Amino acid sequence: MKFFANFLVIPLAWLPLQAQVFTFTHEDMLKYTAQNPFERFADGRPKAPDAILEKVKGLSAEEVWAVLPGAGFRNQYEGNFRILHPNRKLVGRAVTAQFMPARPDVAGVMEADAKAKGLRDNGNQRVLDMLRPGDVLVVDLFGKIEEGTIVGDNLATYIYAITGTGLVVDGAIRDLEGIQPIDMSVYCRGVHPTPIRNVMLTGINVPVRIGGATVMPGDVVFGDSEGVYFIPPQVVKQVVDKADETHIHDQWTQEKIKTGKYKSTDIYPSPRDPALKKEYEEYKKRKLEEQK
Amino acid sequence: MKFFANFLVIPLAWLPLQAQVFTFTHEDMLKYTAQNPFERFADGRPKAPDAILEKVKGLSAEEVWAVLPGAGFRNQYEGNFRILHPNRKLVGRAVTAQFMPARPDVAGVMEADAKAKGLRDNGNQRVLDMLRPGDVLVVDLFGKIEEGTIVGDNLATYIYAITGTGLVVDGAIRDLEGIQPIDMSVYCRGVHPTPIRNVMLTGINVPVRIGGATVMPGDVVFGDSEGVYFIPPQVVKQVVDKADETHIHDQWTQEKIKTGKYKSTDIYPSPRDPALKKEYEEYKKRKLEEQK
Amino acid sequence: MKFFANFLVIPLAWLPLQAQVFTFTHEDMLKYTAQNPFERFADGRPKAPDAILEKVKGLSAEEVWAVLPGAGFRNQYEGNFRILHPNRKLVGRAVTAQFMPARPDVAGVMEADAKAKGLRDNGNQRVLDMLRPGDVLVVDLFGKIEEGTIVGDNLATYIYAITGTGLVVDGAIRDLEGIQPIDMSVYCRGVHPTPIRNVMLTGINVPVRIGGATVMPGDVVFGDSEGVYFIPPQVVKQVVDKADETHIHDQWTQEKIKTGKYKSTDIYPSPRDPALKKEYEEYKKRKLEEQK
Amino acid sequence: MKFFANFLVIPLAWLPLQAQVFTFTHEDMLKYTAQNPFERFADGRPKAPDAILEKVKGLSAEEVWAVLPGAGFRNQYEGNFRILHPNRKLVGRAVTAQFMPARPDVAGVMEADAKAKGLRDNGNQRVLDMLRPGDVLVVDLFGKIEEGTIVGDNLATYIYAITGTGLVVDGAIRDLEGIQPIDMSVYCRGVHPTPIRNVMLTGINVPVRIGGATVMPGDVVFGDSEGVYFIPPQVVKQVVDKADETHIHDQWTQEKIKTGKYKSTDIYPSPRDPALKKEYEEYKKRKLEEQK
Amino acid sequence: MKFFANFLVIPLAWLPLQAQVFTFTHEDMLKYTAQNPFERFADGRPKAPDAILEKVKGLSAEEVWAVLPGAGFRNQYEGNFRILHPNRKLVGRAVTAQFMPARPDVAGVMEADAKAKGLRDNGNQRVLDMLRPGDVLVVDLFGKIEEGTIVGDNLATYIYAITGTGLVVDGAIRDLEGIQPIDMSVYCRGVHPTPIRNVMLTGINVPVRIGGATVMPGDVVFGDSEGVYFIPPQVVKQVVDKADETHIHDQWTQEKIKTGKYKSTDIYPSPRDPALKKEYEEYKKRKLEEQK
Amino acid sequence: MKFFANFLVIPLAWLPLQAQVFTFTHEDMLKYTAQNPFERFADGRPKAPDAILEKVKGLSAEEVWAVLPGAGFRNQYEGNFRILHPNRKLVGRAVTAQFMPARPDVAGVMEADAKAKGLRDNGNQRVLDMLRPGDVLVVDLFGKIEEGTIVGDNLATYIYAITGTGLVVDGAIRDLEGIQPIDMSVYCRGVHPTPIRNVMLTGINVPVRIGGATVMPGDVVFGDSEGVYFIPPQVVKQVVDKADETHIHDQWTQEKIKTGKYKSTDIYPSPRDPALKKEYEEYKKRKLEEQK
Repeated sequence: MKFFANFLVIPLAWLPLQAQVFTFTHEDMLKYTAQNPFERFADGRPKAPDAILEKVKGLSAEEVWAVLPGAGFRNQYEGNFRILHPNRKLVGRAVTAQFMPARPDVAGVMEADAKAKGLRDNGNQRVLDMLRPGDVLVVDLFGKIEEGTIVGDNLATYIYAITGTGLVVDGAIRDLEGIQPIDMSVYCRGVHPTPIRNVMLTGINVPVRIGGATVMPGDVVFGDSEGVYFIPPQVVKQVVDKADETHIHDQWTQEKIKTGKYKSTDIYPSPRDPALKKEYEEYKKRKLEEQK
Repeated sequence: MKFFANFLVIPLAWLPLQAQVFTFTHEDMLKYTAQNPFERFADGRPKAPDAILEKVKGLSAEEVWAVLPGAGFRNQYEGNFRILHPNRKLVGRAVTAQFMPARPDVAGVMEADAKAKGLRDNGNQRVLDMLRPGDVLVVDLFGKIEEGTIVGDNLATYIYAITGTGLVVDGAIRDLEGIQPIDMSVYCRGVHPTPIRNVMLTGINVPVRIGGATVMPGDVVFGDSEGVYFIPPQVVKQVVDKADETHIHDQWTQEKIKTGKYKSTDIYPSPRDPALKKEYEEYKKRKLEEQK
Repeated sequence: MKFFANFLVIPLAWLPLQAQVFTFTHEDMLKYTAQNPFERFADGRPKAPDAILEKVKGLSAEEVWAVLPGAGFRNQYEGNFRILHPNRKLVGRAVTAQFMPARPDVAGVMEADAKAKGLRDNGNQRVLDMLRPGDVLVVDLFGKIEEGTIVGDNLATYIYAITGTGLVVDGAIRDLEGIQPIDMSVYCRGVHPTPIRNVMLTGINVPVRIGGATVMPGDVVFGDSEGVYFIPPQVVKQVVDKADETHIHDQWTQEKIKTGKYKSTDIYPSPRDPALKKEYEEYKKRKLEEQK
Repeated sequence: MKFFANFLVIPLAWLPLQAQVFTFTHEDMLKYTAQNPFERFADGRPKAPDAILEKVKGLSAEEVWAVLPGAGFRNQYEGNFRILHPNRKLVGRAVTAQFMPARPDVAGVMEADAKAKGLRDNGNQRVLDMLRPGDVLVVDLFGKIEEGTIVGDNLATYIYAITGTGLVVDGAIRDLEGIQPIDMSVYCRGVHPTPIRNVMLTGINVPVRIGGATVMPGDVVFGDSEGVYFIPPQVVKQVVDKADETHIHDQWTQEKIKTGKYKSTDIYPSPRDPALKKEYEEYKKRKLEEQK
Repeated sequence: MKFFANFLVIPLAWLPLQAQVFTFTHEDMLKYTAQNPFERFADGRPKAPDAILEKVKGLSAEEVWAVLPGAGFRNQYEGNFRILHPNRKLVGRAVTAQFMPARPDVAGVMEADAKAKGLRDNGNQRVLDMLRPGDVLVVDLFGKIEEGTIVGDNLATYIYAITGTGLVVDGAIRDLEGIQPIDMSVYCRGVHPTPIRNVMLTGINVPVRIGGATVMPGDVVFGDSEGVYFIPPQVVKQVVDKADETHIHDQWTQEKIKTGKYKSTDIYPSPRDPALKKEYEEYKKRKLEEQK
Repeated sequence: MKFFANFLVIPLAWLPLQAQVFTFTHEDMLKYTAQNPFERFADGRPKAPDAILEKVKGLSAEEVWAVLPGAGFRNQYEGNFRILHPNRKLVGRAVTAQFMPARPDVAGVMEADAKAKGLRDNGNQRVLDMLRPGDVLVVDLFGKIEEGTIVGDNLATYIYAITGTGLVVDGAIRDLEGIQPIDMSVYCRGVHPTPIRNVMLTGINVPVRIGGATVMPGDVVFGDSEGVYFIPPQVVKQVVDKADETHIHDQWTQEKIKTGKYKSTDIYPSPRDPALKKEYEEYKKRKLEEQK
């Protein structure tokens, strides 16, 4: 597979064993992502196909935005990140994790659960063990910077080796200089030398909040140099299709603009002159046919 | 019952019907609050007795803090609120609610669920219908101010009429001038004229985050003019007991200080002079005995 | 007139001489406030009648908000003020002033203009000289605190003596302790000891921006303990009329709520039970008739 | 003309038709920019010559600052921008635009005005139609980010195609990834995917405020990697002349410093030793002569 | 002595033993406060007389500000405090303390020093032991809120019992509800339940910085509902004298204003009409004579 | 010496003449840095050897952090800087300077002192004159941006010419475009065109606070793309030694991770499988031996 060709050896069997206070059963996952038009992973998480993800990599933010609010999704964007490698698009399927400030009573129950299921005790890492190629880890660490560092360079290496994508964290990372050379997209709120502490992992693959956005497991993550969009799988195709038309419109418009012959309102958002309008319609028709 | 004597007529039967993406079953509630030493409500939520709540009303923040971190609970305080009636202590049992930014796919499933269960469609109010006397509604609205107003004066009247306590919201309220005259403790982040919008109610009586604190249903809420503490039921008795001793210490210390005979380090945190030390120990012993 | 009965002696003749870079001619004023249903001042500024202002003093923020966005006015509210005397409603007709960071070329032209018109050289005070009873001075000082103090206690005394109302300034005031005892509503962003400096008065009675709100001369200002609303004169009557109905609704609803017999969704926003609904409709009809 | 040689075809006839609440007549423009020593455009806006603009491109911020406050202009700098292409100096003649939060009564009058003058209805773009080669659009969008995006990639392409310079906006832009590849200087406060909304264009080529700076139409804009200076045309020549001397001083000083023979106070701000002082004076004299 | 009459018993002998990294010798104190016109304490700290402090209590912020910048003191004011009892003027002689983030090497040396001098080990309290009647403790805790709480209710009681004044801390306090009932002026940045930790006391009675102000030991502290002024002893008399004149001016001006007969520029800052001017001059002369 | 080979001519004799209110005598310096294991400068400041500094240049932030808190140094890191040349490690020996808001009485004493000692009057530069090769100037300017610019391009050239390192300032710099081309690490809070003003230099080579860190003269400064660490000389060797082992661990761990054969908890923080554990121990032993 082209997408992750450089990662040949992939762990084969995951047991989606979880021990978090918020857990989706297979049934929950199907119910809350019922509009997913694609295949699913064993645990029910939507699996947008690699071919679609490839197309998403060619989108612009404008093209994503052109569809989402109109489809009723007004809360799928978040900005204000510190971005590593902003020019490397981040695209993949969301695996979500939620942390909360630790309290020993709740954390104790989760740890006992984990022990009973034979999981290792290092709770914060459990979600990393579930990652697969093409996944993007999306972590709600409630904006914590000091002692809110989801990974350092070792675990960042792990994430990239397994997923080939990157990381979105409403929190921080450690070891910036060790992570920077990995060619991995990271969207975080800050960098701090302290290790993660005083938090508990309360949810895996449940809805999480990243700033003003609600992210579902299986959402198609699209990160560019502005911020991150979380595209519900059921609208991905619509986004990709409409983008073709937007591409054509913008290309024609900008060519016209560059001639210097027009005022901005002559051409944008649509040509004013009937002859120009006709010229554009024919251009669009021809281009759309070429793309088929 | 003295505590809510002025609210005679109480709705009798609640059906804890819920339709949220995050829901605790009765079993979950028992498991995650297993250390609760008190009775429980029908849905399993810990029910600290009224007599204990009365004692908690007499505590100071210092006395609460004196126990919590030592017992491993370092994340049970949150400040930075706008407080209505800061001099009226807010004490009660937490009923928690979590909101997230709305997305139609998830909200649609919850609304369908609610309809199937015969619940009214006005989702945001569902949690209000569950309140009982002595409850304190604790709402995670992720700091939203504009269109993040959990109640206006009508519903604030409702909350106070039913609970006799108040409200903690990591979000806003509407109709400040209508709410102010109600003698009700309110801890919010702001006030805004807009009605609540563009959010969905995702959890009732599950763990919620209020700033840096994690709140469990049934926690004993303690609000004073500084901020709010969420005391796990299993440590409430320890807090109350230790407070007696702190009271005695502070009373003795401040009396000594007011004589003007001592430097601060002679007396505080404990008397330096052996004779004084002895005097204090005897005073404490006597007072503790008086209190029995 | 009851409203300002305690200010007997009023200066009689204003010459609306202006020397600002932004000035409305009489014609401009008529054109941009063409929907004003009321009388006008000599310079064309809308003059909402005292009787209406009296009614506005009885409104709540909720009642103002209930009309404005629906009438297309979504930007007429601003909060985040430091408020002196928050429980004293601020109601009056807006006189607007705009300041900008000083530059000697522009300021020089304005000063020369003023001199030619026989105006005194202390530019910042010119707008004060134009105030009349019932006016509310609304000043855009672009959030400046240090050296952004529109008045100290002497000029605050002046404003109150003339207008009997108060002041809204997106900037600061001086001499808090001298102003506090004046029973005058003040909405400012801060308090600073420095006198105003390094700014120039660029507009009087033109549209100004106060945070996220656009204010026109003659708008009806309504300030309560939340913030300030700037109500265009053409919607004031609609606001006042609708408020009566809201009053009735809230009174009935809160009485029902206080019985403790209902869940919140039984009663709010409207009664669910047909019998209750009917009861409410009859109550409303009766009350509306009583008010006529 | 070398400056914009790559933009061959230029629209020929602008009608400076305007329909904004704040408009400068030709007379106003002459009056408020009376000290302009250069030619003017048809609408009276000062037109600093291309030759001067070329020289300004060689300045440093220090050299600009060295003159402005001393000439009484203390409010001509603004920083805290997000800058695209910070190493590409932005130099040109200011075309100013002011937006305010929309209100339908005021916006309606302006739209009717525009219609009467045969202008297209897309108000926000009107100012773009007025741009000419060498202009820099300077937009007051009062710091609005969400729904405060003055241009996306299509209109950014337009601005650059016409002006060959860039953009200063106290607001946001859209389509960062489409704008970044255009080799165009942009100074904005943020980036957001939403289109511009809920604002109205209230002024073109009038004084506008960008943060703490007041900008006049025809000011010479100078943007570097720190921020933006708005240089009144009447002091541009003084700035350019003084810069030559500063260049000489800094070159000599830094050469001396690099020898490592001197303490900082021996050399800076001026040489302490009389012999060194003399050496410097002779160096300066020689260099100034060479430059003639 | 009237000023502290209710604190009869005062500790008699202080040994100004210090063990801080920054310490003023008696000689340093004399040198850096050489312009002090008043008596001094044993350690050299200026001792503005009680009679002067009484007069300072009658000042307004405006009157303090009227002198300081003109005398070259532009950095003696700090605002942005949370103030307890804002209407109770805070006046007294500054005792300064500086804290820094702890490091064990430096703290260790100071503790060893203290031990060698027989001082108690609780370093943070050492400065409290030095307080005397009429002192105001001024503490630089670099804005630390969490674990930056200089006192709780026991030590606040101590401060007030000894000094009869209050506290200024660029940091926090604990036990708000225990401190509030003490009738003591407190200027702090916040309130937090955590005890002070992770800091070291590095200076006593040396220059300290409180926000943008530099405070010297012996400065006369003046706190009102706006903020705090630190008045160097050498200008206190000038402030008090000038205040008398300002009082007269404001009284006359405000009386005139309240007649409603004048425009603001007729009267303020000084009367325009020659007859009025003369009237004022005579009034002032008479009043000043009365005060002698 | 390789480290500064390009700066051949070094001023030979410094007189550590100082005239600041906070000054360390030679004795103070020895006392407060008593644990320094290295040589010292003439004034007692610790002089970590060049060879150690070279090793520190190879460290990562993680390796520095791995030792400091465990050794009791929890306040030696500060982030939130604007960094010039973030990829060029900043390493050297701290020379500290403290500024405070100016007051003429204190500044006057210091200037008189300086004059008496024959120092030049330009106070702010005095500390620059004391710099030597390998020093890093660390300046507390209390976060001041406007008029808080410690150097422009001339003095930045000086610092780099003398030290070959860089600058840490809790304040600002001027002339960004002139400083950027110097290949010099700069950690500042901002950039502003104004020259430094209204401050006084109150301490040289005394403890200073940079945000949340306390810096001692002679600390080893380590700046990377995250922020700056101030390493006390007594722990530098321990840091360097432990780093070797961390290097080995991370290299082995990341190699294993890149095989894609392991879950994260199999390998990190230490291998779970006994065979793997053994493999790692042998690898480590071998590598450590190779390094000897």
